[in-house]
Amino acid sequence: MVPSPVPPDMPTVALLSDFDDYYAGVMRGVVCDHTDARVVDVTHRVPRQDVRAGAFVLSRAAPYFPDDTVHCVVVDPGVGTDRDVAVVESGDQVLVGPDNGVLWPAAERLGDPVAYRVEPGEPASATFHGRDVFAPLAGRIASGWRGYRDERLADPTTLGFGDHRVDGGVIQGEVVYVDGFGNVVTNVPGEPVLDRTSFGRTVTLGDARLPFERTYGAVPPGEALCTVASHENLEIAVNRDSAAERFGLAAGDAVRFELGGAAE
Amino acid sequence: MVPSPVPPDMPTVALLSDFDDYYAGVMRGVVCDHTDARVVDVTHRVPRQDVRAGAFVLSRAAPYFPDDTVHCVVVDPGVGTDRDVAVVESGDQVLVGPDNGVLWPAAERLGDPVAYRVEPGEPASATFHGRDVFAPLAGRIASGWRGYRDERLADPTTLGFGDHRVDGGVIQGEVVYVDGFGNVVTNVPGEPVLDRTSFGRTVTLGDARLPFERTYGAVPPGEALCTVASHENLEIAVNRDSAAERFGLAAGDAVRFELGGAAE
Amino acid sequence: MVPSPVPPDMPTVALLSDFDDYYAGVMRGVVCDHTDARVVDVTHRVPRQDVRAGAFVLSRAAPYFPDDTVHCVVVDPGVGTDRDVAVVESGDQVLVGPDNGVLWPAAERLGDPVAYRVEPGEPASATFHGRDVFAPLAGRIASGWRGYRDERLADPTTLGFGDHRVDGGVIQGEVVYVDGFGNVVTNVPGEPVLDRTSFGRTVTLGDARLPFERTYGAVPPGEALCTVASHENLEIAVNRDSAAERFGLAAGDAVRFELGGAAE
Repeated sequence: MVPSPVPPDMPTVALLSDFDDYYAGVMRGVVCDHTDARVVDVTHRVPRQDVRAGAFVLSRAAPYFPDDTVHCVVVDPGVGTDRDVAVVESGDQVLVGPDNGVLWPAAERLGDPVAYRVEPGEPASATFHGRDVFAPLAGRIASGWRGYRDERLADPTTLGFGDHRVDGGVIQGEVVYVDGFGNVVTNVPGEPVLDRTSFGRTVTLGDARLPFERTYGAVPPGEALCTVASHENLEIAVNRDSAAERFGLAAGDAVRFELGGAAE
Repeated sequence: MVPSPVPPDMPTVALLSDFDDYYAGVMRGVVCDHTDARVVDVTHRVPRQDVRAGAFVLSRAAPYFPDDTVHCVVVDPGVGTDRDVAVVESGDQVLVGPDNGVLWPAAERLGDPVAYRVEPGEPASATFHGRDVFAPLAGRIASGWRGYRDERLADPTTLGFGDHRVDGGVIQGEVVYVDGFGNVVTNVPGEPVLDRTSFGRTVTLGDARLPFERTYGAVPPGEALCTVASHENLEIAVNRDSAAERFGLAAGDAVRFELGGAAE
Repeated sequence: MVPSPVPPDMPTVALLSDFDDYYAGVMRGVVCDHTDARVVDVTHRVPRQDVRAGAFVLSRAAPYFPDDTVHCVVVDPGVGTDRDVAVVESGDQVLVGPDNGVLWPAAERLGDPVAYRVEPGEPASATFHGRDVFAPLAGRIASGWRGYRDERLADPTTLGFGDHRVDGGVIQGEVVYVDGFGNVVTNVPGEPVLDRTSFGRTVTLGDARLPFERTYGAVPPGEALCTVASHENLEIAVNRDSAAERFGLAAGDAVRFELGGAAE
């Protein structure tokens, strides 16, 4: 049986960005310079400057981190402009990042978010607040510093994953993320649209008819399927291949499914 | 002189997968939620769903980790199907992963493997056992939990790296891994086929005659060579360039060498 | 206000290489086998065997790491040849790597470098001194070992980032690094060539006239700009796109700017 967690003593700082370059390493160094906490990455491969993708990833990753984790989140196309610097306490975790919405879906998932606004002063650079603002903040917060609580952020920037509609058997939504396997993640929550009673039904997507299955290996290699994967949304996948390539789908694209009867 | 190891006090959890996406970050979070150990990556860039490549990498990396390391290994095309969940004690390390062979070559290298079968219960997802099964297991084992010892895995799935043949000066084998430099690693053990007395001889590969050398810099930039690299197998390389591209070789391809006399 | 650092108790080993493969993971394992320190990456995606790019990245990252950090640096096209193994004490940090210049610009930035030569003995491989020489050294140094101080390195290999010239409003230099966003980093120090009083002026680069701006978001998405970014050098960027692709520039290319008047 898979065992339950034990509360760790060691605090954790988790880094998430779209840097995919040594800039992530510089942030690790800055965090290490401010705390004895563990420093781990969520990812630094968020599609460049895609705030919504960053928000999606954070919302799906943060709930699995321990209490007291400090997330340092930098997907920040507005760096050096007048967007605010935010610290959000949510659940038992703390989210640090630009106030551009990237923190919000995770904050709502973690529960009862309270947002603070931090005055960044005069950062050493106008282009790398990951290094000069967010990493020092995250590091010090992991060390117990709570000085950011002076000023509430009146109106934090929120962000959603777009509309979806369910009308009888027709489901319309959009692609929110394409993962590294080429799995196409939509913004349509798997339940209650599709639930476990749907396994074995078919889904029509354009010209294709896909079975709705619990997992990838339920179809032969190279065949497509619909599933509700670990992110809890409707996903289009190809067993051992890329659904994004197969169906020509990318983040932001509209998708339309028709839910059919049982597969033959 | 390069100094010897000192036994570390801090336990280590090492992660290996083919995720190359934020899923690796989720696993880091889960591990942190179950243990105070250090969390480091072996790699998350195993070629997607290539169990043999994952097994090769783990077998070459694990022996360099400290005693008591717990390896959490997820190259798992059968996730959510009926493949077993395995914990293997081997050497002084513990390997956690699917029972699809990915653990086996490392387990044999570390020595005297004993395999256990863990009943995964009802994982939260059918598609991401890295998060829901393997990472919690690895984290708890790093914290000292040994509850997995209840049930032996009767017949663990083994895996080899394919056949190779040495017949006089003719060596036949196959490509097991292409590394990030484009070096082509074969399944042919360097010794006793070729040993240090072979340096300076030539090797014929198709139309090409390559010198057998100790290291890349022994030939000018852009020139090809054969060597026995750090993984201890016969490798085809090009100094400062990609041998995989030069010779059109990929994992699984057959290779045939003829060992010749001394290079002129 | 962004808080100041607190001195951490936990020592840090920082890894930098061009491996971008499981070889980096093997080094993490070896370091963990020699020390209880934190192990973090600067990056392992230095362009392959580009010693100058590695030197640039290290020089821009190391100053942000805590005192007592041990940097293990492996961009080493001469592995297994007769290049020396170096340990450089500089500032309050220690740099470990091949004596090919990769350590030098960082050593000078950190201040007052003192270089030592380490006799590698008989490494287990001729191709992977990251595993067999540099990682053990770095790990043991992080544990307090100072045995490397026996022998000074008489004449450490230095490395510069090429010449640049400023002649009136004409600035000539070369590209030293292209980052993951496609930002083109030159070898021209931002100050005193261009300083904050230059914001709003234009820069001519070939046929293009670019505004000189503090940050990317000062121009509309898709438009190019010049800036002095976090690395403190003159940089050519495109807001939310790749300047390297737009202008066809790569590391080593010559660049020539003409500084003009105020943008209209």
